[in-house]
Amino acid sequence: MTAVSAFPITPASPDGTVDLVALRRLVATLVTAKVDSIGLLGSTGSYPYLARTERQRALDVALDEAGGAVPVLVGVGALRTDEAVRLAQDARAAGAAAGLLAPVSYTPLTDDEVFEHFATVARESGLPLCIYDNPGTTHFTFSPELIGRLSQLDGIVAVKCPAPAPESVAGHVRNLRGIVRDAFSLGYSGDWNAVEALLAGGEVWYSVVAGLFPATAMTLVDAVRQGDADEARRLNTRLAPLWTLFKSFSSLRVMYAAADLMGLCRAEPPRPILPLSIEAKRQVAETLRELDLI
Amino acid sequence: MTAVSAFPITPASPDGTVDLVALRRLVATLVTAKVDSIGLLGSTGSYPYLARTERQRALDVALDEAGGAVPVLVGVGALRTDEAVRLAQDARAAGAAAGLLAPVSYTPLTDDEVFEHFATVARESGLPLCIYDNPGTTHFTFSPELIGRLSQLDGIVAVKCPAPAPESVAGHVRNLRGIVRDAFSLGYSGDWNAVEALLAGGEVWYSVVAGLFPATAMTLVDAVRQGDADEARRLNTRLAPLWTLFKSFSSLRVMYAAADLMGLCRAEPPRPILPLSIEAKRQVAETLRELDLI
Repeated sequence: MTAVSAFPITPASPDGTVDLVALRRLVATLVTAKVDSIGLLGSTGSYPYLARTERQRALDVALDEAGGAVPVLVGVGALRTDEAVRLAQDARAAGAAAGLLAPVSYTPLTDDEVFEHFATVARESGLPLCIYDNPGTTHFTFSPELIGRLSQLDGIVAVKCPAPAPESVAGHVRNLRGIVRDAFSLGYSGDWNAVEALLAGGEVWYSVVAGLFPATAMTLVDAVRQGDADEARRLNTRLAPLWTLFKSFSSLRVMYAAADLMGLCRAEPPRPILPLSIEAKRQVAETLRELDLI
Repeated sequence: MTAVSAFPITPASPDGTVDLVALRRLVATLVTAKVDSIGLLGSTGSYPYLARTERQRALDVALDEAGGAVPVLVGVGALRTDEAVRLAQDARAAGAAAGLLAPVSYTPLTDDEVFEHFATVARESGLPLCIYDNPGTTHFTFSPELIGRLSQLDGIVAVKCPAPAPESVAGHVRNLRGIVRDAFSLGYSGDWNAVEALLAGGEVWYSVVAGLFPATAMTLVDAVRQGDADEARRLNTRLAPLWTLFKSFSSLRVMYAAADLMGLCRAEPPRPILPLSIEAKRQVAETLRELDLI
């Protein structure tokens, strides 16, 4: 069944200390909305900017607040393989349901290097892993063949792909489904193209908007679950002004502004990422009001 | 006068502990060859993969070995602005001549974000900074305008640009020279295109090949200094087989293989980066032998 995985921001102080009170508040809204899982410390959760100890603190609070009712996936990516192994071991020991592993890079990586990286983290941590395919941040592009090879490994259970344009998503799902092993989960991120990906057979929506507006995302996915493509598309089209902001300013920066407007937390993104300008925040406020989101 | 800045690898154990004995040996060869500066902990020196304490240890040894005879530039880039500030403060306290600051990113950065990042590191560290423009690793592209704005800031003293193709380098130098303040140093990296950049007026060759083969790089730059463009081009053309390997396998991976072949150190790049395959190492050995480099 189609699922929503909600990716919240990780509120933190300028020195990188996670605001556990604010994070607990964000997670509580996701639990109340009964999202299918929480994608803690994803790209929107600024995981690469947080120290290992802060990532542990954030995970502990999220797991405590989720209370076993909602599984918590957690970002375990790191530039070094040994560091990613340690983060995945931490996550498993804490009780995370799975790890989100992106091929974080500085020196551009080859396919074989990414394969070995994933195999090592899976083997040495025992944590089920979701391949976190996010070329906009990692600058690594997974070929379907590489996803297929990785899906054969014990412990690599899912992939989160950037949703392709609506006209090509059906082929994308079909192509991947033909390559990965059975019971391997295919999911999509990139909120503005996600609905078509779900209608085409994607099983999970890894959703930024659900991190703050879980009810909105659940309503949309309910329409998909009920086979009501028209209604799902109508709801998605209604959100187009928000998608425009995501594309203009990045969903991460917009979510920080939105959380502030909602009174959930006053955090700013980790520097060097700057908060939106006053004018951009005004646009975010206006759009959220027009959409009855605040 | 045209200068060579030599960028060595940073030999380290698989757990990321810098091999100080091997590093001292590499630095000693650069001092003996009288390179104009050492670019420690550059991209070839795998700085983002090393912990702050390891970067301190590496810098202390390099400064000790250089003994004031050769200035040491050192990579101070980090994903977080506060971390880059700390690294630049460390470098200044240790006695580095300047910091190499790349806009390391995960969330893609805007021009204003990069500007603020550089301004903060310059202001809070007091360390002279070289803008480290390396879009192949940072995925950030500096516009000439942004370099011009940064060059107006106190403490931002130089730029290391990727050398453009030979046919466009003269325009690149002229364009930048018209934008940056006087006495701002324009230098180039990307060994295969560097000679034309120097002939066009680039002042510094930020050189990977000089990190292991400093005499070769100095001979080439001597020809440029003497205004003998034909000889500089002849020497550069002779090195074409090495440049082909750099382009095929990346200069970093080739340098690790070469250091091993030369008996300087047996280190491997930090995982997930893998050492070259046996076949690729054989090609490196053959090429270095043909060029009388080993």
